[in-house]
Amino acid sequence: MHTSYGKVLWVDLTKSSLTEQDLDESTVRKYIGGRAFGAKILLEELRPGIDALGPDNKLVVSTGIVTGIPFAGNCRYVVMAKSPLTNAWGEANASGYFGPELRFAGFNHLIIEGRARSPVYLCIKDGKAEIRDAEHLWGKTTGETHEAIQDELHEPKARILSIGVAGENLVRYACVLSELHRANGRCGMGAVMGSKKLKSIAVRGTRKLKYFDEKRLMELCRLANKEVWQGAYGDLLLKYGTDGDLDDLHATGRLPTKNFTKCTFSGYQKITGETMAETILIGRNTCYACPIACPRKVAAKEPYEVDPDYGGPEYESTAALGSLCMIDNMVAIAKANELCNKYGLDTISTGVTISFAMECYEKGLLTEKETDGLDLKWGNSQASLQLIEKIAKREGIGDLLAEGVMRASKRIGRGAEKFAMHIKGQEVPMHEPRGKKGLGLSYATSNRGACHLQAEHDDFFEDPKWLRPELGIDKTVDRLSVGADKARLVKVLADMWAIYDCLSLCKFTGYPEGGVEVERVADIVNAATGWNVTPKELMTVGERAINLCRIFNAREGMARKDDTLPERLMEPLTEGMYEGQGISRKDLDEMLDYYYEYRGWDKRTGWPTKSNLEELSLKEVWEALKI
Amino acid sequence: MHTSYGKVLWVDLTKSSLTEQDLDESTVRKYIGGRAFGAKILLEELRPGIDALGPDNKLVVSTGIVTGIPFAGNCRYVVMAKSPLTNAWGEANASGYFGPELRFAGFNHLIIEGRARSPVYLCIKDGKAEIRDAEHLWGKTTGETHEAIQDELHEPKARILSIGVAGENLVRYACVLSELHRANGRCGMGAVMGSKKLKSIAVRGTRKLKYFDEKRLMELCRLANKEVWQGAYGDLLLKYGTDGDLDDLHATGRLPTKNFTKCTFSGYQKITGETMAETILIGRNTCYACPIACPRKVAAKEPYEVDPDYGGPEYESTAALGSLCMIDNMVAIAKANELCNKYGLDTISTGVTISFAMECYEKGLLTEKETDGLDLKWGNSQASLQLIEKIAKREGIGDLLAEGVMRASKRIGRGAEKFAMHIKGQEVPMHEPRGKKGLGLSYATSNRGACHLQAEHDDFFEDPKWLRPELGIDKTVDRLSVGADKARLVKVLADMWAIYDCLSLCKFTGYPEGGVEVERVADIVNAATGWNVTPKELMTVGERAINLCRIFNAREGMARKDDTLPERLMEPLTEGMYEGQGISRKDLDEMLDYYYEYRGWDKRTGWPTKSNLEELSLKEVWEALKI
Repeated sequence: MHTSYGKVLWVDLTKSSLTEQDLDESTVRKYIGGRAFGAKILLEELRPGIDALGPDNKLVVSTGIVTGIPFAGNCRYVVMAKSPLTNAWGEANASGYFGPELRFAGFNHLIIEGRARSPVYLCIKDGKAEIRDAEHLWGKTTGETHEAIQDELHEPKARILSIGVAGENLVRYACVLSELHRANGRCGMGAVMGSKKLKSIAVRGTRKLKYFDEKRLMELCRLANKEVWQGAYGDLLLKYGTDGDLDDLHATGRLPTKNFTKCTFSGYQKITGETMAETILIGRNTCYACPIACPRKVAAKEPYEVDPDYGGPEYESTAALGSLCMIDNMVAIAKANELCNKYGLDTISTGVTISFAMECYEKGLLTEKETDGLDLKWGNSQASLQLIEKIAKREGIGDLLAEGVMRASKRIGRGAEKFAMHIKGQEVPMHEPRGKKGLGLSYATSNRGACHLQAEHDDFFEDPKWLRPELGIDKTVDRLSVGADKARLVKVLADMWAIYDCLSLCKFTGYPEGGVEVERVADIVNAATGWNVTPKELMTVGERAINLCRIFNAREGMARKDDTLPERLMEPLTEGMYEGQGISRKDLDEMLDYYYEYRGWDKRTGWPTKSNLEELSLKEVWEALKI
Repeated sequence: MHTSYGKVLWVDLTKSSLTEQDLDESTVRKYIGGRAFGAKILLEELRPGIDALGPDNKLVVSTGIVTGIPFAGNCRYVVMAKSPLTNAWGEANASGYFGPELRFAGFNHLIIEGRARSPVYLCIKDGKAEIRDAEHLWGKTTGETHEAIQDELHEPKARILSIGVAGENLVRYACVLSELHRANGRCGMGAVMGSKKLKSIAVRGTRKLKYFDEKRLMELCRLANKEVWQGAYGDLLLKYGTDGDLDDLHATGRLPTKNFTKCTFSGYQKITGETMAETILIGRNTCYACPIACPRKVAAKEPYEVDPDYGGPEYESTAALGSLCMIDNMVAIAKANELCNKYGLDTISTGVTISFAMECYEKGLLTEKETDGLDLKWGNSQASLQLIEKIAKREGIGDLLAEGVMRASKRIGRGAEKFAMHIKGQEVPMHEPRGKKGLGLSYATSNRGACHLQAEHDDFFEDPKWLRPELGIDKTVDRLSVGADKARLVKVLADMWAIYDCLSLCKFTGYPEGGVEVERVADIVNAATGWNVTPKELMTVGERAINLCRIFNAREGMARKDDTLPERLMEPLTEGMYEGQGISRKDLDEMLDYYYEYRGWDKRTGWPTKSNLEELSLKEVWEALKI
């Protein structure tokens, strides 16, 4: 192999020191990058029980071994730390251009420790890194920050990730933004940056990466792009972006609505991808090396002025800030999305929190006095926008809601916990598990709290054409089924999706949503490195990542009890195509038993065991473990 | 109306002076902007017979009255001057972001006169303009120039148009580039900038424009975007860009091949939009306010390294640099496109010139001695790339070919004129008129020389659903017909397309290619201004523009004799679906008679008459005229 196996930049903000570290082949082949690499580092570096918002937490920004190679979907990067939302494994990944640019700038991974005395930002150009003063940027929006940094660095092409005031104010679900509209949304990674007084990371790279077999690699990139183009969701994403199937979700009764008490939304037609395209859509944003360009760009003047620089709402944002709050005004949703991106708030957690507040208000658990006079009735988009401002700035009721629904509901008490739609402390995303029950198991077992990006798509596997026996996907399942086969599918899919997160690939381009299968990914890794990895070996890296994160959580005190669903998602749906369907405690327990069994985990605790860690070549982790 | 009717910035490079001028409502309503405005200015300002590459020429950069209003297709701007290629009316328009940015920076039009002593660039920010030294930028590529200017102005968001070395070297078909890949391609406008020692124009604007009825305007923008989305070409452009129907053009025998001696290309499958999407496509570029994003972004390493910053080949470029030269290597075509954008060469004229040279080489009119040793056999992509370098730098054979095919063929002599595919001195674009004969008339009568953007699409009007009696399009025609009805259709379409060029709108979004009809455009103009223009009034502005350009050409000595086609396009096609079809001298003469009659022009000279100019409220132009 011509290139190095990658460089790590250690950044100590307390000491204001920078250290480079080379990685060796065996480490890289074992962990690949992204989630597995970050989990390894954070397990080694963090003591259990530390304050996620204290200087002892560390932030890992990580790419994959093939990041920078131009094929569609290969654009992502992962930000990881202990989460201030879940007090456990925290991870958020995003698309755009930052990940490849970091590689071109000479680094595969950043590990940021300590806390700066006053605000700083990190700047990396072609192998040279520098910590710079950011006092003048503190309090600024992500957009203002972006522009100011490009200007002061004389780098119009710098790719910059930043926090907004929400991160500065330690809102527990503050996110990190790059390009003003690509969000490392979940788990409060923006609050961790804020706690370290780290406003931004700017990178600019012009280095050419060298690979083992560049000719073969280029052929493979072409094949992969062709497969992306032909993927199941290609045309829909191309035309309507991620909002493309919102109408179908409504039609099939799977559109989270009114804080998950409903799954169809009377106003759905006003907020579909098609409606967006025909009303406020004025362009699209792009990601590195991808011809699909699913990110939207929107603008409006009435009833709210929406700034196109902050992108357009993705499906998660549209549903969370829209149907979940009974808001059917597309412009208001776009404005809410703009505010979240400007202030650096995760749109999913923000929407779920607003929806929670609306339900508390309806039920009399929050009164107008407590809401600073805001009339939080369902569908009040004006109030929703004011709430976003308050949350970001931690003003009045916003200070309570900035804690997320788990903590806020505990403080409100009087049964508010029932309306707090979270798992392990993180707000539930916009996919209804009662219409595809494997997702329920995936939600419950996700190490980063409620998450739709661990494993999904029971419904695909009703059709035998999607089976891949060589990967262990060898039986069709019904979307509504529970039990052993479903648990096995979720386990295999989770390992597969985990390798996407180690390689930092987009799940819309990978099988089953996109056309790029794990085998193609293995081809690309091999052409890049000269290795001979098999799809199975890659899946094992994914499994390793899941086990490492699970151990991280175990050390923080999480166990089987935390692999659960909000009560509301266990109750039967009261409308729609899947009316009557729920995921009972018994269903879930049965699936958990099987799931732990397939993973080789202890059924009582839900923890990895010595033997299964040894099988994953993680003996040393077991030995270091004190659980 | 709340806003001004627009500001003109006069830039005298000889005196290094800047002067602002306000426009009054009657002027703006009469000329709108773009082509009509530029023609008015250049008729008033230029004496006939001046050297197009001398200091007496003037360059007009013009937007339309609604530029800056966010609806799809409303992104263009027009660059005009006397053309060094045709020695007559010169005009080139481009998409992207420059036009709207110029409006946001406070100006509707720039008029640039004189010649700087040493290289300069013009910089405009929010109403303030400055002429800056560009000595250090002379000789640089468009990409290097772009980056250097953004940096030295501390304006990462500046929109910049630049010439490359081709413009500096006065290549007669040098173009102007903005965003590195949006070209004001035709008529040698880059050479005019080069002759003035003007390297670039950088604009940055943050002003908000005010309009008469902003609420109504926003509704209309939404309607227009919806109509664009539903337009005839929408889905094809979305998925495959302008190369989307290259395969269809081959299948129907209308793909210009081997210097127009063929109309089908055996290698066509290797260069289609679909092939591009499945091989080298790695992203897409965008234009202001448009959700379609048809511009491509491509990259490759083998057999040529292609830099994605320079965009991907549009259909015109793919055919001119591909099938016309019998080149079926997509990567080579992308590389040729990159070089043209880097050096600032019009891809159409460049491709036609290379194809011309290949035919001369085949026929023994150019030998290897004269080609500096290049083996210019059909399909030699390596030689084609070397030729592009030589043309841009005017090295060896490149110096001859930099003059364009009309001049080069005259110098070569010995019958080379037969292979010189040009009209009025400008190389013919990539549409075969023998398969839709109205295009032949449109080619012949175009005031800027061979051009596919004056009026097209006989084939649409075989179907009554495309008829618009209120605009004068009231009879279906056969694509192969000639005669009165065809001439009338071309006249009406030309007036309509001319108004797009006055308003600086994209023809892919307007009727018939896109869904936005003239009536919708009139609605938008009225909501913006408070006027009550009808579609008919707008069409009259278009007709006014055509008459002004025609008078410009008449003053330069052009007449009916110049409204012609290259002999080769008059001969019958020898293959394909339209085998045997030609446009005979008699066919063309008959159509010209009718065309002039419908325009009220003198049939002998092809010039406007006193009465028809009076009808167009251009009495003063007639009076000032000395033809």
